[in-house]
Amino acid sequence: MIFIGEKINGTRKAIQEAILGGDADFIKKTALDQANAGADYLDINAGTDPSREKDDMLWLLEVVQAVTDIPICIDSSTPDVIRAAIHAAKATPMINSINGDPLRLESFIPFIKERDCQVIALALDESQSGMPKTVAERMTVLERIFIATRTAGIADDQVYVDPLIMAVATDQQAGLIAFESIRSIRSTYPEAHITGGLSNISFGLPNRALVNRTFLTLAVAAGMDSAVVNPENVPLIESLKATELLLGKDRFCRKYTTGAKIGFVKK
Amino acid sequence: MIFIGEKINGTRKAIQEAILGGDADFIKKTALDQANAGADYLDINAGTDPSREKDDMLWLLEVVQAVTDIPICIDSSTPDVIRAAIHAAKATPMINSINGDPLRLESFIPFIKERDCQVIALALDESQSGMPKTVAERMTVLERIFIATRTAGIADDQVYVDPLIMAVATDQQAGLIAFESIRSIRSTYPEAHITGGLSNISFGLPNRALVNRTFLTLAVAAGMDSAVVNPENVPLIESLKATELLLGKDRFCRKYTTGAKIGFVKK
Repeated sequence: MIFIGEKINGTRKAIQEAILGGDADFIKKTALDQANAGADYLDINAGTDPSREKDDMLWLLEVVQAVTDIPICIDSSTPDVIRAAIHAAKATPMINSINGDPLRLESFIPFIKERDCQVIALALDESQSGMPKTVAERMTVLERIFIATRTAGIADDQVYVDPLIMAVATDQQAGLIAFESIRSIRSTYPEAHITGGLSNISFGLPNRALVNRTFLTLAVAAGMDSAVVNPENVPLIESLKATELLLGKDRFCRKYTTGAKIGFVKK
Repeated sequence: MIFIGEKINGTRKAIQEAILGGDADFIKKTALDQANAGADYLDINAGTDPSREKDDMLWLLEVVQAVTDIPICIDSSTPDVIRAAIHAAKATPMINSINGDPLRLESFIPFIKERDCQVIALALDESQSGMPKTVAERMTVLERIFIATRTAGIADDQVYVDPLIMAVATDQQAGLIAFESIRSIRSTYPEAHITGGLSNISFGLPNRALVNRTFLTLAVAAGMDSAVVNPENVPLIESLKATELLLGKDRFCRKYTTGAKIGFVKK
């Protein structure tokens, strides 16, 4: 399971305050906590103010990379910000994200290709109908994305597909659509990774953490192999370790039993 | 989900003591607690002493049926005990259990048929190799069982197949074999129920409750629709309710949201 640590996000109040106040220590601690808990990438989103996004992104990169060499997941929709961040990143970064919009593909792919980055690909097309409703709509958008990435020489295993998880409170079929999309992506693009945030699924419901971790269990069984999460979330991680154990992915039950002994979240 | 409450079992120390001491109040409380928590059947196992099993079974039935009219699941391997209990049961009972042993089928089926009981069918053949190893071995035994039940005029939906869940600590594939067996049973016998105890899967592991409830989530997704459980186990039940919600089985999220509000275990 590949964890993309979600906590350094300028749309979250605590991070926004740290950015505006230049509180490097808080950012460093947030980065280190996730790194020590086992994050494979650290998502960095500098917030949504166009006038400062690039400077803030570069500052965040500098601060985070001063304390950890875990690769960065550059989270922005602005080509100029991503381009600058790709060059400022030490380890080969991940880009969050491309989607089926042809203009976005055209502008993002060349500089993703420059450093052979990993890239999150959302199964939606901003230029068309917005959020996809069916599994088939998602697969149609993904077909277009994979034609573009393959044409550019980006290997399928550099692509982290986000199937777009919707709220089950809004659409009772949202869980089933997510699992079916994951199975379909896994069989159509066996080398690709499948990732996504978990919190959409539980939007509007009580006890969201329970729904999120139960969703992760079912999504991993369907073929998801990555997630954008808080890697310090103990109930989520222990639920995932039990899932991997039950799916035959834990040789001699070693990860599970070690986790149960020393705590499921590394520190 | 059909819950078979597991707590009145004479192989458990507290129940054994209540039986030997004639402590009807303790048995009544154990029955009522499970009934109030939402059990659909109450398993009754009078213990393993052949000289007293029949009398103890009939006493337990009398005591339990004095406080609840939830049907009984008669848990014995002795034909004489089962026959007596079937006649003492008020509501149509469930029998726990038949298996692929031809002698057992021959002796049990006629009196199961007498009251058109529900019946748990274990996917093993005591007379042959013992515990089955593969999915195929389980399906072979079940074929023989369903020939016998169908011949006797027992409808498939009276049969609760137990796929025999083994310990993942002993065999790393035990989870995968269970899920594959459940899928195979669900597609071969679409009208049959699929049940089983959950605790075998976690035998020998730390934090067994976590493994058990994660297993239940994956087993329900594979097609399990019943379980032999303690229905008062809140983490297990809330995990199940989140699972049903995510599998599109909870109209308007009503059961989940009500459960989250008033507690997942009815009282």
